[in-house]
Amino acid sequence: MVWTLAQIASEIGAQLVGNADKKITGVGTLQNAKDTDISFLANTKYRQYLKSTSAGCVIVSPDDLAEVKTNALVIDDTYVAYARVASLLYPEELPDNGIHSSVVIGDNCNIANSARISAQVFIGANVQIGDNVVIGPGCIVENDVKIGADTRLMSNVTLCRKVSIGQRVRIHPGVVIGADGFGIANDKGKWLKIPQVGKVIIGDDVEIGANTTIDRGAIDDTIISNGVKLDNQIQIGHNVFIGEHTVIAGCVGISGSTRIGSHCAIGGGTGIAGHIEITDGVQLTGMSMVTKSIMTAGTYSSGIPVEPTRDWHRNVVRYRQLDKLNDKIKQLEAKLNQ
Amino acid sequence: MVWTLAQIASEIGAQLVGNADKKITGVGTLQNAKDTDISFLANTKYRQYLKSTSAGCVIVSPDDLAEVKTNALVIDDTYVAYARVASLLYPEELPDNGIHSSVVIGDNCNIANSARISAQVFIGANVQIGDNVVIGPGCIVENDVKIGADTRLMSNVTLCRKVSIGQRVRIHPGVVIGADGFGIANDKGKWLKIPQVGKVIIGDDVEIGANTTIDRGAIDDTIISNGVKLDNQIQIGHNVFIGEHTVIAGCVGISGSTRIGSHCAIGGGTGIAGHIEITDGVQLTGMSMVTKSIMTAGTYSSGIPVEPTRDWHRNVVRYRQLDKLNDKIKQLEAKLNQ
Amino acid sequence: MVWTLAQIASEIGAQLVGNADKKITGVGTLQNAKDTDISFLANTKYRQYLKSTSAGCVIVSPDDLAEVKTNALVIDDTYVAYARVASLLYPEELPDNGIHSSVVIGDNCNIANSARISAQVFIGANVQIGDNVVIGPGCIVENDVKIGADTRLMSNVTLCRKVSIGQRVRIHPGVVIGADGFGIANDKGKWLKIPQVGKVIIGDDVEIGANTTIDRGAIDDTIISNGVKLDNQIQIGHNVFIGEHTVIAGCVGISGSTRIGSHCAIGGGTGIAGHIEITDGVQLTGMSMVTKSIMTAGTYSSGIPVEPTRDWHRNVVRYRQLDKLNDKIKQLEAKLNQ
Repeated sequence: MVWTLAQIASEIGAQLVGNADKKITGVGTLQNAKDTDISFLANTKYRQYLKSTSAGCVIVSPDDLAEVKTNALVIDDTYVAYARVASLLYPEELPDNGIHSSVVIGDNCNIANSARISAQVFIGANVQIGDNVVIGPGCIVENDVKIGADTRLMSNVTLCRKVSIGQRVRIHPGVVIGADGFGIANDKGKWLKIPQVGKVIIGDDVEIGANTTIDRGAIDDTIISNGVKLDNQIQIGHNVFIGEHTVIAGCVGISGSTRIGSHCAIGGGTGIAGHIEITDGVQLTGMSMVTKSIMTAGTYSSGIPVEPTRDWHRNVVRYRQLDKLNDKIKQLEAKLNQ
Repeated sequence: MVWTLAQIASEIGAQLVGNADKKITGVGTLQNAKDTDISFLANTKYRQYLKSTSAGCVIVSPDDLAEVKTNALVIDDTYVAYARVASLLYPEELPDNGIHSSVVIGDNCNIANSARISAQVFIGANVQIGDNVVIGPGCIVENDVKIGADTRLMSNVTLCRKVSIGQRVRIHPGVVIGADGFGIANDKGKWLKIPQVGKVIIGDDVEIGANTTIDRGAIDDTIISNGVKLDNQIQIGHNVFIGEHTVIAGCVGISGSTRIGSHCAIGGGTGIAGHIEITDGVQLTGMSMVTKSIMTAGTYSSGIPVEPTRDWHRNVVRYRQLDKLNDKIKQLEAKLNQ
Repeated sequence: MVWTLAQIASEIGAQLVGNADKKITGVGTLQNAKDTDISFLANTKYRQYLKSTSAGCVIVSPDDLAEVKTNALVIDDTYVAYARVASLLYPEELPDNGIHSSVVIGDNCNIANSARISAQVFIGANVQIGDNVVIGPGCIVENDVKIGADTRLMSNVTLCRKVSIGQRVRIHPGVVIGADGFGIANDKGKWLKIPQVGKVIIGDDVEIGANTTIDRGAIDDTIISNGVKLDNQIQIGHNVFIGEHTVIAGCVGISGSTRIGSHCAIGGGTGIAGHIEITDGVQLTGMSMVTKSIMTAGTYSSGIPVEPTRDWHRNVVRYRQLDKLNDKIKQLEAKLNQ
């Protein structure tokens, strides 16, 4: 793809300072961009590279324009502008039109003519696939699944029976949506499986990262609301509800029946207990351990970062003695107050 | 499926109070059930919904019968009873009889006539598949695998060479059983692979959740005993042994050569070091960190739950000073005891 | 495979003490080896089994030779020697020569004649596959991927567009390399996807465990250097760099743009924040939480191991009071020093 700066400025609504006819073919970081690349400054720690960059153009905010030695596109939100420019320069690769001959399709499916289905795919019975849906190679779509318009399954995605996916959703390889939740009843020492008969409902504009798993509901449904963004290797238990525009980083585990609000941000490696509620606007830093409901918006943390192993050993010992230490202090206070 | 309450009562051995001819077609929670649904009360916190439920029938214990305004099935263990009723009302969907034409099968396999193998499946050589086994779409079954009767692989399961699976096992999508364990030897600064020549042996009545991985043994075998229930995204290292009827929640990691007893319950996100032993009847709460053997049954925990980030920062600083704090207290005690 | 001890001794450069014609067909642990197995002693805690082993031969260091009652192969690094012997006795099983008829291949691919591609595989367009590459059943190799000579993808591996894999690499089932990284920009409360246009570059002699995910770079590339060994269920974010001969155990998460040095060893379940650096030669024990750069080689740890739940409850309460405890001690000191 080749775009002139004038075209790009027009597409994203930026002010162009420099050569309107300059041709751009790719993006690059300030440090590594070539003359045909466009770059951007969104994080002040990279401002030092503005003067020396070889980029053919830089997207900057008005405050940083004075530092730019090359062409500039000036706009307030430079990161959002960069996202739009990158989408122009790197349109998605698509499989061929239509349905590959190796695809196996069950009875009573309703597949839009504009859908593209790549090779080695399995589609069960009673599946509904909307306009412009793209299904990558090796995907499994079980019976009674619905996929909304403009949604894309990358390669090797598994959608289990009755799962419902909204529009403009993007699901990465290895994702499993709708596997049975972990429902077991103890029957005199042995564990009896509880049939999992609920569904998974995924809203519009959701993105789901590689090897993430979202279990179907036990009775009612598991729900991922519009605009939610999930990173890789996240585990979401049965009957979890996640509110709109919440983002969750990699390796998070959310136990069953927990309700997470809208506009939350959950750091990587966090674990959240089951049957609790996290209200709107909560931020959890990485590796947080959440055992109780959080009903006040704000930022929460837990965990103790690494220290040299020798120090760690000592502090763990002291931690174990905290209760005794507390007793000692009480005794000292008592003596002093005699 | 349609069942009358008389039929259901007879199947599960419950006492029917109400209309024996009432027809039931599904299950529901007390809050959301319809008139044709059956519901249940297993957790006292939902007792408030007994009076107002629209369910056509409720499974309750004798103690709760007085509160029920609709039909009732009375039985001591209501959750186990619910599990049985749900199995009646929601029989599993099966692929068509026989072997789909797209399946690729190696030499010398022994596949029961009653087995069902769905599309896009690969079966290697010398594979043994028992009666009524169901293999979902996209599964990979490598050479020399054995699968016991009535076992079901859902979609997109991978069983590596020589893995042995018992009867009535259920394996969810994305599971990988029998990949090489993490065996490496340091050869003058570079890492040399140790061939992993052991097997994985899975017992009867095991369930394995989506994207869980169980590595093959280095020399001897990795063993998952009868009745074990594993949730999603669990990692089990080479030569681990897990005893009967132990349950493990999602995102747990168990390092190599560790032995876990019977009837244990391991909370989500727990990490367990290698080459240790956990005895029978141990319960670990979520996100536990286990570095040494646990030889006494009981409940164990670790980790510090979240607090507002400002408080967390302060407490982490104090934690790092614990050793110095301890010294100060000693000095105070010495002074006071002069 | 049958090897005589003379042949094995010659292959690995060990001194043979005993019957040169003794035939060996497998490996075993000292406790479980049969007369036709070879065993080894690499960990002194198993020395007690040297006298009683039924193994046909034992690989030992010169210091342990006196204890051996059977044939011996004497060599300094017994674990490395064992790795070599196991490779002799258990050569890898390979799919049939050539390309299975069920494989789907795109345009303009360059596939070596010596490559073996198993069934149900998808190969995109412009893919380059080197000599002796083995691609197991169900693998997905997207457009513009390069795979170096002697590399093996086990079953059900997904390589996304433009990923580059070195020579002698081994990738286990369920691995996803090159999925989009987690790049989003907040656009007035909604999250906008940042196109991920970088690549993933995997060096030579890398091993990648089951269900591990490695994201493609946002602009520049994600890089895994030569000789790196990754265990199962690891998540590596976009633009991470991992230096040569670093080993990472299972369930580790590494956030985007973090740089990890050479010859590091990272314990299972560790979480590492984004945009930081870990220098060469750092060791992290299991479940470490790393939030800042580590610029000095050495061993680091965090986390507090389990204790009985009752004690844990008490210590968590005390932990939360650490700041107050500190104040109390200050007051006591002030009083005493009046």
